[in-house]
Amino acid sequence: MGSGAGDAIGVFDSGVGGLTVLRAIHARLPAEHTLYLGDSARMPYGAKSAETVTRYALAAADFLSKMHIKALVVACSTASSVALPALRQHLNVPVIGVVDAGVTRALAASRGKGVAVAATEGTVRSQAYQRGLAHSAPGVRVVARACPLFAPLVEEGTVEGALAQAVVSHHLGDLTQQDVDTLILGCTHYPLLRASIAAVLGPDVEIVDGALGVADELAHILTDGGLLATGPNAGQRRYFATDAPDRLQVLGSRFLGAPVPLVELAEL
Amino acid sequence: MGSGAGDAIGVFDSGVGGLTVLRAIHARLPAEHTLYLGDSARMPYGAKSAETVTRYALAAADFLSKMHIKALVVACSTASSVALPALRQHLNVPVIGVVDAGVTRALAASRGKGVAVAATEGTVRSQAYQRGLAHSAPGVRVVARACPLFAPLVEEGTVEGALAQAVVSHHLGDLTQQDVDTLILGCTHYPLLRASIAAVLGPDVEIVDGALGVADELAHILTDGGLLATGPNAGQRRYFATDAPDRLQVLGSRFLGAPVPLVELAEL
Repeated sequence: MGSGAGDAIGVFDSGVGGLTVLRAIHARLPAEHTLYLGDSARMPYGAKSAETVTRYALAAADFLSKMHIKALVVACSTASSVALPALRQHLNVPVIGVVDAGVTRALAASRGKGVAVAATEGTVRSQAYQRGLAHSAPGVRVVARACPLFAPLVEEGTVEGALAQAVVSHHLGDLTQQDVDTLILGCTHYPLLRASIAAVLGPDVEIVDGALGVADELAHILTDGGLLATGPNAGQRRYFATDAPDRLQVLGSRFLGAPVPLVELAEL
Repeated sequence: MGSGAGDAIGVFDSGVGGLTVLRAIHARLPAEHTLYLGDSARMPYGAKSAETVTRYALAAADFLSKMHIKALVVACSTASSVALPALRQHLNVPVIGVVDAGVTRALAASRGKGVAVAATEGTVRSQAYQRGLAHSAPGVRVVARACPLFAPLVEEGTVEGALAQAVVSHHLGDLTQQDVDTLILGCTHYPLLRASIAAVLGPDVEIVDGALGVADELAHILTDGGLLATGPNAGQRRYFATDAPDRLQVLGSRFLGAPVPLVELAEL
């Protein structure tokens, strides 16, 4: 099955966080059709095994593939950390994850001290960021921290104030003694905590949102493949969730930076 | 298919929390065989829809039924709140949930002021505790609070100290102005936060763990049905998880109050 310039960009995440990536794609590539799938029936992926996350990612990819996509964006660090090889073997369109983009941006920002990564348990355990950094910058010192309270805190809507800073200090407070100059936000929920994280880490640590690099990488791939949508109009945008579409719609606007229109229920 | 005294008690939860209920069952009914299933591939249930939670509960019940059970304990408040009717229609053994037990214990403890319920989003939205309290004590004033940060905090291992108290204050701090004398811990994770909750609410609020009533109710049902296991030996105990059995084993000991032996992977 070939894909063409008129096909959509498929974006999936375990839930609502990937809308921060979709937001960057909409800004960079406004003419593209996009399909977003949040696997809310089985979210979060963060504490689950690589085998289970890979199984879920393949099911999500199949759902989007049936609707004709020309590229798949895995807008979930946990899935990007463990499922890209299986997805690339399974699909015949480009597959882009958020981990590589985060690594690239972090190394561009770093001034030669260590690089820290804040992510879910599953992402940290996968060593995906650690391996990516070591591959691109042999010898770089990496400090990885699992932050299991961050995503629930963001979903709950508490991103600033005393409690948010207490949670940030709990997971990341010791980084101020670790001689790092860059922090990768290794989960698509974490950009919403950026102000609280900056308040705890201070001005000497650059905070990098890997998700922002994904839109650039996607634009390059579509350009190189002659697959860019043309025309002046905004693309069509559809949203799907595997459970509680109303919840994705309500929560999602903070992540997308705009109201989320109708979310359709997806049966995988 | 009939069931007999030699069959096991099936216990299931979305993950590890139900081990607090299993612990009470082991203490009350040490001669019984027990089968525990944690649906860790799809946990948590707390923010998911009633339809999806019911579908997951039926799959868990089918898995346990195939191993011959004489009673099913739904050791998850969210599933107890929404899936009991479907489970009772689907199975031909007694099905016991944690909600009714919590209601009964709360009304026994209350001195006539209001009753508060701390639970997941899904349990609060289901109105199961609110309806149960109103049914047993018409006119009782009920204050229900969703506490989405409690379960991640407990799983992360932070149950005491400044951060735990800050999170408890965030979700429940205003109860001290609500004229309630009893709080139901409406999620099986919450008993591990009991000390921090008590520190925030003070000595005038009685904290009730509904899970403890489940073992009594189970003992009555088995006695009435002539289904109690006999003999001096401890029953066999098997543990299953739908994902990452090693994680359930490591986390579980704090919930079970004893080391969790081998956890087997269950394919539903």
